[in-house]
Amino acid sequence: MSGRLYVVGLGPGDPDWLTPEATHVLGEASDLVGYAAYLDRVPLRAGQARHASDNRVEIERARHALALAATGHVVAVVSGGDPGIFAMAAAVFEAIERGEAAWRDLAIKIVPGISAVQAAAARIGAPLGHDFCAISLSDNLKPWSLIEKRLRAAAEGDFVIALYNPTSKARPDGFRDALVTLAKHRAGKTPVIFARAVGRSDERIDITTLADADASRVNMATLVLVGSSATRLIPRTGERPWVYTPRGAS
Amino acid sequence: MSGRLYVVGLGPGDPDWLTPEATHVLGEASDLVGYAAYLDRVPLRAGQARHASDNRVEIERARHALALAATGHVVAVVSGGDPGIFAMAAAVFEAIERGEAAWRDLAIKIVPGISAVQAAAARIGAPLGHDFCAISLSDNLKPWSLIEKRLRAAAEGDFVIALYNPTSKARPDGFRDALVTLAKHRAGKTPVIFARAVGRSDERIDITTLADADASRVNMATLVLVGSSATRLIPRTGERPWVYTPRGAS
Repeated sequence: MSGRLYVVGLGPGDPDWLTPEATHVLGEASDLVGYAAYLDRVPLRAGQARHASDNRVEIERARHALALAATGHVVAVVSGGDPGIFAMAAAVFEAIERGEAAWRDLAIKIVPGISAVQAAAARIGAPLGHDFCAISLSDNLKPWSLIEKRLRAAAEGDFVIALYNPTSKARPDGFRDALVTLAKHRAGKTPVIFARAVGRSDERIDITTLADADASRVNMATLVLVGSSATRLIPRTGERPWVYTPRGAS
Repeated sequence: MSGRLYVVGLGPGDPDWLTPEATHVLGEASDLVGYAAYLDRVPLRAGQARHASDNRVEIERARHALALAATGHVVAVVSGGDPGIFAMAAAVFEAIERGEAAWRDLAIKIVPGISAVQAAAARIGAPLGHDFCAISLSDNLKPWSLIEKRLRAAAEGDFVIALYNPTSKARPDGFRDALVTLAKHRAGKTPVIFARAVGRSDERIDITTLADADASRVNMATLVLVGSSATRLIPRTGERPWVYTPRGAS
């Protein structure tokens, strides 16, 4: 069979962050599959089919893409950010594991992209300079007790913490609860950054502290960074301060 | 002053992963500053000065770049991977914090890139599907006790773990010690991936387990991934298996 499947990271939204590899495979694909808001970012090309789906139906979307590839189509599943970081790649392999045997031998390529944590970090300085963790607060697929355990472990390890998907309809108070857990381990003056829609027209970045963080100000487009004990600010004249974490221990 | 400083991520090595933003600023710069092996990746351009330095002199390199920018040069500090992830961005802000007051008001832009963990993950499937940590094992700048504490926390939190800089001359047994620590918390059958020089001509990927991992097979170009309790393989006919971590809890 000549079909193949690409799982493509579009990055955070700014086309200046779309890799040449992603541009190539989007041009090569006969079919694009993805959440409608991501498909809208890809320039239209005559003869290319588009299969838009709602958010939250990742497995169905992955199965659809695999079925198309298995019948000879060249399919690109589009994903925001990096498909391997809280995006479509894992859903594709879950669908393969549970799906038709032939899907295991399809030609599949994951095309990495700039993830939200990298875009947010670049805008504010170098907050990840030290070791860091990335945790999704979405509890659609994992119990809140596991999220809570990971937040505690990340705090005990003094990692810089990137929180993806801070809000969800299913658990509107999740982010508030996460801040309470982190505040048990980390000082109130710890820098906290809300980075919303980085690289898009509605980009907005707020720098606050763990003590002052207002949980109501995040939405699903917000990436939250919580500093380690070493993360600090460098003031600037008339500009937002830089936020960085030195590479050393203090 | 019209000088400015870019800190540019070149990605793992394959030009197909270099963002358009990085290509633009490398073309705009009057001066390139960086470790010689990274400068060699940037096409030569007439009239552009190159300032190569050895590895391990990040702060001096950063100070040099800042001094050039402060006198009106347009300087690009080149970095492998993403400059914000165990690369040059943090060194630049350390130099600013300790350096001349005027450096704080320089125009500085961090240009993100694909980091080694993303390249490795893309090659093998979707190992990061769940929450993950990134830890540098280099103890040039932080005590081994802190690294050990973070390894323990990452293991207790059941994170997928990406290990950067697994070997160093200063601590040749660091990676071996790290495996021993992780093995206290995680099953011997846990998938471990050695991803060496991904995106370059000498790319090599080995999939093993925590029980069988041979610490002598890593070098400074190796990114090591250690799975969570949920990370698993999907066998393929005549090909390396896929490695992935489902998004759910099990």
